[in-house]
Amino acid sequence: MHFFSDNVAPVHPAVFAAMQAADAVDVGYDGDRLSRALDARFSALFGREAAVLWMPTGTAANAIALAALCPPYGGVICHSEAHIQNDECGAPEFYTHGAKLLIAGGEDARMTPETVRALADAIVDDVHRVQPRALSLTNATELGTVYSPDDVAALASLARQRGWRVHMDGARVANAIVHLGCTPAELTEGVDVLSFGFVKNGGLSTEALVFFDPKLADDARRRRKRGGHLLSKGRYAAAQIHAMLDDDLWLANARAANGAAARLAAAARARLIHPVEANELFLRMTPAEAASLRALGFGFYDWSDGVIRLVTHWASPAAEVDALAQAIAALP
Amino acid sequence: MHFFSDNVAPVHPAVFAAMQAADAVDVGYDGDRLSRALDARFSALFGREAAVLWMPTGTAANAIALAALCPPYGGVICHSEAHIQNDECGAPEFYTHGAKLLIAGGEDARMTPETVRALADAIVDDVHRVQPRALSLTNATELGTVYSPDDVAALASLARQRGWRVHMDGARVANAIVHLGCTPAELTEGVDVLSFGFVKNGGLSTEALVFFDPKLADDARRRRKRGGHLLSKGRYAAAQIHAMLDDDLWLANARAANGAAARLAAAARARLIHPVEANELFLRMTPAEAASLRALGFGFYDWSDGVIRLVTHWASPAAEVDALAQAIAALP
Amino acid sequence: MHFFSDNVAPVHPAVFAAMQAADAVDVGYDGDRLSRALDARFSALFGREAAVLWMPTGTAANAIALAALCPPYGGVICHSEAHIQNDECGAPEFYTHGAKLLIAGGEDARMTPETVRALADAIVDDVHRVQPRALSLTNATELGTVYSPDDVAALASLARQRGWRVHMDGARVANAIVHLGCTPAELTEGVDVLSFGFVKNGGLSTEALVFFDPKLADDARRRRKRGGHLLSKGRYAAAQIHAMLDDDLWLANARAANGAAARLAAAARARLIHPVEANELFLRMTPAEAASLRALGFGFYDWSDGVIRLVTHWASPAAEVDALAQAIAALP
Amino acid sequence: MHFFSDNVAPVHPAVFAAMQAADAVDVGYDGDRLSRALDARFSALFGREAAVLWMPTGTAANAIALAALCPPYGGVICHSEAHIQNDECGAPEFYTHGAKLLIAGGEDARMTPETVRALADAIVDDVHRVQPRALSLTNATELGTVYSPDDVAALASLARQRGWRVHMDGARVANAIVHLGCTPAELTEGVDVLSFGFVKNGGLSTEALVFFDPKLADDARRRRKRGGHLLSKGRYAAAQIHAMLDDDLWLANARAANGAAARLAAAARARLIHPVEANELFLRMTPAEAASLRALGFGFYDWSDGVIRLVTHWASPAAEVDALAQAIAALP
Repeated sequence: MHFFSDNVAPVHPAVFAAMQAADAVDVGYDGDRLSRALDARFSALFGREAAVLWMPTGTAANAIALAALCPPYGGVICHSEAHIQNDECGAPEFYTHGAKLLIAGGEDARMTPETVRALADAIVDDVHRVQPRALSLTNATELGTVYSPDDVAALASLARQRGWRVHMDGARVANAIVHLGCTPAELTEGVDVLSFGFVKNGGLSTEALVFFDPKLADDARRRRKRGGHLLSKGRYAAAQIHAMLDDDLWLANARAANGAAARLAAAARARLIHPVEANELFLRMTPAEAASLRALGFGFYDWSDGVIRLVTHWASPAAEVDALAQAIAALP
Repeated sequence: MHFFSDNVAPVHPAVFAAMQAADAVDVGYDGDRLSRALDARFSALFGREAAVLWMPTGTAANAIALAALCPPYGGVICHSEAHIQNDECGAPEFYTHGAKLLIAGGEDARMTPETVRALADAIVDDVHRVQPRALSLTNATELGTVYSPDDVAALASLARQRGWRVHMDGARVANAIVHLGCTPAELTEGVDVLSFGFVKNGGLSTEALVFFDPKLADDARRRRKRGGHLLSKGRYAAAQIHAMLDDDLWLANARAANGAAARLAAAARARLIHPVEANELFLRMTPAEAASLRALGFGFYDWSDGVIRLVTHWASPAAEVDALAQAIAALP
Repeated sequence: MHFFSDNVAPVHPAVFAAMQAADAVDVGYDGDRLSRALDARFSALFGREAAVLWMPTGTAANAIALAALCPPYGGVICHSEAHIQNDECGAPEFYTHGAKLLIAGGEDARMTPETVRALADAIVDDVHRVQPRALSLTNATELGTVYSPDDVAALASLARQRGWRVHMDGARVANAIVHLGCTPAELTEGVDVLSFGFVKNGGLSTEALVFFDPKLADDARRRRKRGGHLLSKGRYAAAQIHAMLDDDLWLANARAANGAAARLAAAARARLIHPVEANELFLRMTPAEAASLRALGFGFYDWSDGVIRLVTHWASPAAEVDALAQAIAALP
Repeated sequence: MHFFSDNVAPVHPAVFAAMQAADAVDVGYDGDRLSRALDARFSALFGREAAVLWMPTGTAANAIALAALCPPYGGVICHSEAHIQNDECGAPEFYTHGAKLLIAGGEDARMTPETVRALADAIVDDVHRVQPRALSLTNATELGTVYSPDDVAALASLARQRGWRVHMDGARVANAIVHLGCTPAELTEGVDVLSFGFVKNGGLSTEALVFFDPKLADDARRRRKRGGHLLSKGRYAAAQIHAMLDDDLWLANARAANGAAARLAAAARARLIHPVEANELFLRMTPAEAASLRALGFGFYDWSDGVIRLVTHWASPAAEVDALAQAIAALP
């Protein structure tokens, strides 16, 4: 019973079906019918012009986004818990050619205008210090919390005042949108580029990199090729995205994952370290307690001393979720 | 009727079947059962120890291979027709952090020990000139010819004498092996790293990067992650490779592609610019002749003034191939 | 009256004299007599084999040292106050091609085995996290304190256990050596590369990058050329270093700078934030107090809220130092 | 008797004098009086607004110029004989983060609009091929010839039509100007950035990087710092440039070097491979002839089979020049 991560989850059958329904023979790279339809599809979804590139991983999407926003000698402000800071083996530094991540604080993995200002105001504006050029926020965050539309807008507004560009790492943006009950457009006001995640949410191997400033996409297209991410048979990548958007599958899947997390949260209320607003839970738990859960067949990560992480996904079996909820509630 | 490229070809049904048969739930990245089986599978295929990483594109495989072989201040010797030189938007320079491609000549896109020596001997050995550190050859070449096992061994031997590492870009290595009737081991003697192509040969989105010096693979693993190529659900990538190797599907597919090319070659003997040893043909053809073929529904690239390129693939419909052969033969 | 920094200081006349005494005509780059003598000279000074490259700036020396020690996907452990982290506009990230600085704590800008272990032990050893490969310490530190030979040896020993290489940023290593009364060899036990600073200590435009593992120097020589630091007339750079070493001028100059700092420290004892062990002082001071000193003609930096920094140098005029000491003592 | 290179030449006494006359104590880096005066001085010299950065080497100047003009995924058109292609150990690739040098032909190391068009027109405009973004020409060229103002303007005009930026490597621009009898402004029409060389012409360790589009200079300033080229005591670098410009010393020195070359050319007319328009000569010469000159004490490089290179400089002793001229004329 896997509660390790949402990338252990299966691929939704509709995704495979769409791939097999794609034109078997079509123009290579991203010249095919399905790839060419992405701009219009996301423009409609967000209600504003968007230029969209499929990407094989969230790491590639994030890193190429940052390269489009920040020069090699610039800095990207992000939270100390950010995936780009901790979990990408330096991909942002690689794609930006050495830009520096500038680390801001904030409760529950959320930066605030105050924490960002505190960081930025301490950086002397001269040629010796790396100057901020972009801000990257993760929504939902790495700790299972969300930024509201107002939170995002406040950070984006600060960024605009300072001349910084804004990136949103949306590996779990579907979970955030479902939790907030807002539209994709409302959650991305002021954002220049969004890494729109599908893989953790039932997809196979394709994320969407959404540029709300289409001029940035030409640069990114070349960086994608140069990074080795321009798939030869791109039509099968585009098909995955279309399948996830059809009939709002992405929202249904996220709703299922969040629902499973909520059931676990209800059983673990007293142990929660952070609010549960998406599909991740962080629980206080002694090693002995964790061992007793594992003995029952539940798998999960130790996050830090005395804290475990549980992750649900679109296909978490209800029986396993309920069993885990009961087991947690039953801990002495 | 597409004779543009082998990446317009469909995915073999066995590849999709294998993906759907993969464990729906398994450890993420490359910790799954199928990914972990790759080293042993390729070691058996090549009869020597190999460490293998799946890669989403040939460009990524080539560039990460070169980064493992050549320092940023070094040079990689390759032919002027090499894919790494002409068709990867600088991916080798990106992944190696600025290594320089050093261009050797040779008929029919094949370097020889003589052309390589001529290049290398002209480079003064000092700190001002970029010094060669690796040699990269493409087999089958970009012009549809092949290096024999002896050709490869001669270049590899020269490289070893000079202290250079050897990379083989095998985007179409299956076509070369089928043409030569040799084993994979025979064709890669002295090679340190092979980009083993599957996508042009019936695959979907996965190539294999095969390190015959397994110590190099640890470095490459980190570069793969850092390049954004460590897929979250790697089991579906590994499944593609296993499907291609099962029952020698890769050889059967290459045989089909080469066979189609041979039928075209027989009809176009007098027009051939290069020997046809794989699945690509380069034909002398006037614009008027090319237009008349296009008017019949055949699609292909103009390669250079008065030269067209035809590419066949594993699923080139026999009727289309025959029709094209007749049309060429019937040109006045 | 400048107490801003030691780079406002004049060039020692012996340095100019040595440059003018150098062979006017000699082989270019570093093929000249004076450059070729550096290895032997530093090997004698440190009592072990050393390979030495002149460098125009400390930033270049540090960055090229780190590039020789750490791969692009690795990390360099340093203190949060480190010059490489704060004052080089990302030069380490540039020269290492994106390695990450991993920030350790410690009082008075000094890391300890404990703070380093705490940092390193929290880094999961997998391919997602940047792994430490090197440790860089500054001696004297950016806060005017020093690491003793035992401090250095303890950090180097930890590094060796973990498989990390060790760099010392010695922009003010002369000040540290003078303060400690130790030999250069004693202070660099276990260090792989030392950036040996001369410019802040009376030099003009040349630091020495000292490799105690000479094999690393060949790589660094190419990175120096590639970084644009291989001066055309290198003999004049080498001459500067020889002049600083002749008759222990570097020690005399550092003694003078430290002495001036000590006189100020004696007058400001109650205001000191950090021990004064080199030529920098950090003093608690209200804005009004700072303004009153400035009104008397003293120049210095505001370091942070309520803290000023004073820096002395080899040629700080005694009268100015005494005047400042009295002015500080006289503050109400 | 050195005819190896102009970097074996001595430093002009006025340069040393100016350094010693510079303010011994001043603001660090480039905040000093002399550095701040450079923009105005070069703006006057060129009759248009210029932003100027001192640089320790021509390699650094060239590479930072190209980084300001070309993105990492772009290409820089240059001649096959270009210093940036052959003699900088990949510095352009390093500073541009992997841009590709695209090699154009042309007699006597001079590109022409025709050779450049032939190169550029063969590059398919898609995402797979590196696209030209800049053009770099060397004046005087590496073969001792010059581009006239009309030659430069024609190349710059082509570049402007294609949307490329223009860089001039002026390591020996003084020699070109003296030969042509034109003004600096006339020779740089349409040029965006000039590497203005002084070191080969009597300087010590400082070139000027002249931006005629001052907006580019802010980016370059950060790249200079990040490259480790922001000297701590920049006033001594600026002083060198001022000394070279004072009383047109740079023109007088170039006139002397060109004059010496002309005397040698007159004696070697029948052996010349290229026109002698600056201070370099390329002579047909058998190994036996070369040996006989060396036996007389003359030092020079073998350039290629049967060709030697001679370089004169501002201080080439007249007696040595005359002796060499006679020795060449006396060859059987």
